Amino acid sequence: MTSHAHMYDILFEPVRIGPVTAPNRFYQVPHCNGMGYRMPRALAEMRRVKAEGGWGVVCTEEVEIHHSSDLAPFFEGRLWSDDDIPALALMAEAVHRHGALAGIELTHNGHDALNYYSRATSFGPRSMGLMGGTGFEPGQCRRMDREDIRNLRRWHRNAALRAKRAGFDIIYCYAGHGLSLAMHFLLRRFNDRTDEYGGSLTNRVRLFRDLIEDTKDAVGDRCAVAVRMAVDELLGDEGLSSQGEAYEIVAMLAELPDLWDVNISAWSNDSASSRFEKEGFQEPYIAFVKQLTSKPVVGVGRYTSPEAMVSAVRRGILDFIGAARPSIADPFLPRKIQEGRTEDIRECIGCNICVSGDNKCVPIRCTQNPTMGEEWRRGWHPETIAPKCSDAEVLVIGAGPAGLECARALGQRGYQVALVEARREPGGRVAREARLPGLSEWRRVIDWRLTQIARMPNVQLLPGNPMTAADVLESGYEHVIIATGAIWRRDGVGRTVYHPVPGCDLLHVYTPDDIMDGRLPTGRVVIYDDDHYYMGGVLAELLACRGCGVTLCTPAPLVSHWSQFTLEQERIERRLRDLGVAIHTRSALSAVHVGAVTVRDIAASRLTDLACDSVVMVADRAPRDALATDLAPARADGRLRTLRLIGDANAPHIIAQAVFAGHLAAREFDEMPDADVPPFAREFIPLNVQS
Amino acid sequence: MTSHAHMYDILFEPVRIGPVTAPNRFYQVPHCNGMGYRMPRALAEMRRVKAEGGWGVVCTEEVEIHHSSDLAPFFEGRLWSDDDIPALALMAEAVHRHGALAGIELTHNGHDALNYYSRATSFGPRSMGLMGGTGFEPGQCRRMDREDIRNLRRWHRNAALRAKRAGFDIIYCYAGHGLSLAMHFLLRRFNDRTDEYGGSLTNRVRLFRDLIEDTKDAVGDRCAVAVRMAVDELLGDEGLSSQGEAYEIVAMLAELPDLWDVNISAWSNDSASSRFEKEGFQEPYIAFVKQLTSKPVVGVGRYTSPEAMVSAVRRGILDFIGAARPSIADPFLPRKIQEGRTEDIRECIGCNICVSGDNKCVPIRCTQNPTMGEEWRRGWHPETIAPKCSDAEVLVIGAGPAGLECARALGQRGYQVALVEARREPGGRVAREARLPGLSEWRRVIDWRLTQIARMPNVQLLPGNPMTAADVLESGYEHVIIATGAIWRRDGVGRTVYHPVPGCDLLHVYTPDDIMDGRLPTGRVVIYDDDHYYMGGVLAELLACRGCGVTLCTPAPLVSHWSQFTLEQERIERRLRDLGVAIHTRSALSAVHVGAVTVRDIAASRLTDLACDSVVMVADRAPRDALATDLAPARADGRLRTLRLIGDANAPHIIAQAVFAGHLAAREFDEMPDADVPPFAREFIPLNVQS
Repeated sequence: MTSHAHMYDILFEPVRIGPVTAPNRFYQVPHCNGMGYRMPRALAEMRRVKAEGGWGVVCTEEVEIHHSSDLAPFFEGRLWSDDDIPALALMAEAVHRHGALAGIELTHNGHDALNYYSRATSFGPRSMGLMGGTGFEPGQCRRMDREDIRNLRRWHRNAALRAKRAGFDIIYCYAGHGLSLAMHFLLRRFNDRTDEYGGSLTNRVRLFRDLIEDTKDAVGDRCAVAVRMAVDELLGDEGLSSQGEAYEIVAMLAELPDLWDVNISAWSNDSASSRFEKEGFQEPYIAFVKQLTSKPVVGVGRYTSPEAMVSAVRRGILDFIGAARPSIADPFLPRKIQEGRTEDIRECIGCNICVSGDNKCVPIRCTQNPTMGEEWRRGWHPETIAPKCSDAEVLVIGAGPAGLECARALGQRGYQVALVEARREPGGRVAREARLPGLSEWRRVIDWRLTQIARMPNVQLLPGNPMTAADVLESGYEHVIIATGAIWRRDGVGRTVYHPVPGCDLLHVYTPDDIMDGRLPTGRVVIYDDDHYYMGGVLAELLACRGCGVTLCTPAPLVSHWSQFTLEQERIERRLRDLGVAIHTRSALSAVHVGAVTVRDIAASRLTDLACDSVVMVADRAPRDALATDLAPARADGRLRTLRLIGDANAPHIIAQAVFAGHLAAREFDEMPDADVPPFAREFIPLNVQS
Repeated sequence: MTSHAHMYDILFEPVRIGPVTAPNRFYQVPHCNGMGYRMPRALAEMRRVKAEGGWGVVCTEEVEIHHSSDLAPFFEGRLWSDDDIPALALMAEAVHRHGALAGIELTHNGHDALNYYSRATSFGPRSMGLMGGTGFEPGQCRRMDREDIRNLRRWHRNAALRAKRAGFDIIYCYAGHGLSLAMHFLLRRFNDRTDEYGGSLTNRVRLFRDLIEDTKDAVGDRCAVAVRMAVDELLGDEGLSSQGEAYEIVAMLAELPDLWDVNISAWSNDSASSRFEKEGFQEPYIAFVKQLTSKPVVGVGRYTSPEAMVSAVRRGILDFIGAARPSIADPFLPRKIQEGRTEDIRECIGCNICVSGDNKCVPIRCTQNPTMGEEWRRGWHPETIAPKCSDAEVLVIGAGPAGLECARALGQRGYQVALVEARREPGGRVAREARLPGLSEWRRVIDWRLTQIARMPNVQLLPGNPMTAADVLESGYEHVIIATGAIWRRDGVGRTVYHPVPGCDLLHVYTPDDIMDGRLPTGRVVIYDDDHYYMGGVLAELLACRGCGVTLCTPAPLVSHWSQFTLEQERIERRLRDLGVAIHTRSALSAVHVGAVTVRDIAASRLTDLACDSVVMVADRAPRDALATDLAPARADGRLRTLRLIGDANAPHIIAQAVFAGHLAAREFDEMPDADVPPFAREFIPLNVQS
């Protein structure tokens, strides 16, 4: 342990939570992961690794307590009957193996449950349009009557008893994110009841209080009863606020639960991306809670710096450092702090690719941590990797996210690696994109890898070193991995336009690469976005801030359409509108002229001209794969023993996929799996077929 | 067998398909179902019931042949390795039990595979933005090289061999719907290759031909090799067309496969809803195929009428009546024709709720057939039901979709049922909505039930019979089921606006009920749509056709937003634009004035006034549940033995949910299940937990 580790000792104090005691202050709050009940082994192993990495409390995601709270198609936890206990017990047992406490977030989702699978009738404080899924799903819930409330309380109690049987130490009552019935009852906008569960705040709090008391009564002898509550919705008086009703609620219930886990709502506020919020951003909203209760308080704020964590505890804001995203990017964050290895922390970049897993109903991924979600099915560990099985020396060409991760992981395995980069600055697209508005934290993808590589004597980073095929062959390396990235196409070809747009070769047509190289358009700019993630919106922001008159055209129904899945779309659109960016959705680029573009309304096939001085094409990218093509003959005739093309140079994709590709290439080096069958284990429904 | 059954004898002739013979001409073409590999027992039982109902061929949905064709989050078939054989064998065996042939549609989805789960690199004829999912997903595929093509062919061959081992009789090569690699290679817009797989049509067809030949070579001894191909994309010369390249392709490959399964593309064209296309709509596109080949031809066109089927065969257009949706609405359609019970056919209404299951990644549902998807988990059969277990007499109040189905199913069980309806016309919302533009086929929901009920001496339909609570109690019935529907709210309250909109009580504010009652607005009309399914768009169409100047405002990003999932959104929008309807998306209603409304841009919170003479509110509905409230005391004091509120009167929802609720109430009558645990079986990942 290094000397400055003592600074952080406070983070490693045990903290009592009702009848249980957490071994330290590191608290993985409930977070979804896209695996849920569908992939119980994968999920349990992912949680186990966090406990191994030092998180003193490891929680589930939200867990549906009854089939009338069926969140399908989303994969959360499920505790509808005794049949669901084994999957959850698997996780609790895995977490206990490392001395951590296991927490479970019980939920009935009220009007957020679409019940697409169970086909049960949804219910809530009043009959209203269902709010889950896309937010535009058909159907309404029914207004709960007294029997419904009795049923709900019994189901919640039953779920708590089952959770206790599954081995959980901390059992939640959930009133957060606008996603739970307990919260729906709290809110004036959803609760218009005239019975004892509506009207005054005391009445609106009644159901939440009932659930907490029921849970304490059922399992409070052995389990801590936590609440998770949204203490600000950022809606002013329209919603709960830390200056208004949320304050009063916390005051009313102050000593009732054993722990307060508090955050802001909706989920897009709680999990705001780094483009919009920085470390500790929730402190102004949650700081009041500890003043009202003697019970321990958990809060989140994408904390990755131990100094900020210590400060939040010392200032009396938090007892536990809650974390979802930082624990995904680095499951070993607590251990690294404890061992004084703070420079080894793989800091979350706040890109929210993790969140997109749940929103797309697929397993979680992480840009920083390529092993996230792969713990069980590929047996990957975030900190360890198989040692080398030969004395092979490897040339990795291109020090972008794929090349850096590949070289780092090969280096960790013990291989001799030369990592060459054509530019003087390593980092590839990440170095360039991190200079765009709001994306500075993305640099952590490079910084962490450069720090790791710098300490590896067996990895040599050689920037400013463009290589031809001849150079490669002269170098004598027999193993070559090419990670040379991609360039943005200038011709508008993409998902919507299949042939080069007439006029795309005019001089006032720009690409994102031009802009990142400092060649900026001026005047009235049309950005054509057929990429649909962040780039089009970020460039619109950049150019609008620099005084351009920006129009963004996209074939999608929304600007930066896919950023819905990273919870960013609304904020992006609001920012662009505030900057005066004109937005034309459902428009495809038809032609570029001097002084204008022609766009086609894709619903009406109507053509419109938009006056402009310049055009920015954000459509497909062209993989920079010429070197691989040039080296293919040498691979074929045996001059090279292996040749692998990875990352954007193979198929342009998001940064997370590039990092993953680099990691995969390093893991598979010297032991290529059979390409014919999946290189990972799956979880199957078992069948006994009579044939 | 009745006398006119002989008219249909031709439909029951066996037809040879290569080495196998189908017992008749009824062919359930591949169709998705939202269950897929995730719910193998539920899927196998659903397919089995179709074979039992007389379908001579029963196929899978598309089946992914390799993990680089991972369609997650969608649940299709999966044949990535030997581990996937048992689930498919279960289905093949189930289908064989009834003498039907089992078909399997093997697919590699190329650039439509997002590989969110496998994280494999997608590939296609060229590198381009991935097209699957929402169509706006990040990432590109890589351009296939020779090794990729060799690999693909081997994987397809391996999948064919596995399919044979699983017991399938017909094995598909798939080039349809724009969803498969073989089709991507056919298309000039995706295939810009300069090798032997690109350029000329012969070259673009090469991969498809390779796959067919490989499959015949691998399994052709025992299995028929079918192709499924899109013969028109409705894009003119921009795509395949029955007058152009598709014609040439069929001519080139005419005798190569054992069967041609032909349709139009994209999926939204192939599965066009009844709002846009009627029975037999594909004939003009597919008719040419039989002129070019001696092999049997399958085509679809939502055929439900045996006359149309016979005609299509006699006119030499089809050898097999392909069906997806008609086989979902009535799995026993062939048997009913064979037995001369054509009036018993539960005809598909073409609403595409079935399709929404796949698109939402949840199990299939059907408006007409409430047992669809419930065969395994609830043990429901579309034609049989448990006989009554008492002599109870039941009063069903309300003859809308819920009440009609409930009375019908109770009648089928043998109960004495009185079905009373306040209006003179039975059918409730369905009778009213079916008079709106394009929805006339929806009447089949009523017509089939009225036909069935009319033949049941134990069910009495009493229209024109409004009932108060006193009337009910006087009637002497001890079992009452209330299905009195819902009314549209006039105050704008819904998913987006939580308090009555100021001005909502002005006289020029209309609801869908007003319009269906014949009270129509005139002049400039603003339709405010916070419902997001069909109603807002249908009313816009109606009013525009009647000469109103229509503006549709919706908080959603698209008009009729949820109709994306029924594949209707694009057509709805195009129709409305063609009719001159102005569309304001992402707009919430703020206030109604005389002569204008104020709408709020939900992204920018900017207010705008729109001039108008009248306003139509399409937001939430109010359940008509007063009768249930009034009768609750009688239930509590035992004057009523059972009282159940179902359908829209309980919680307003889509028609499919009302029919389901009616059916469920009939199934559960006299044997209410335990409400605390799911009333259906589930398929679990098995675990052995050490505790």
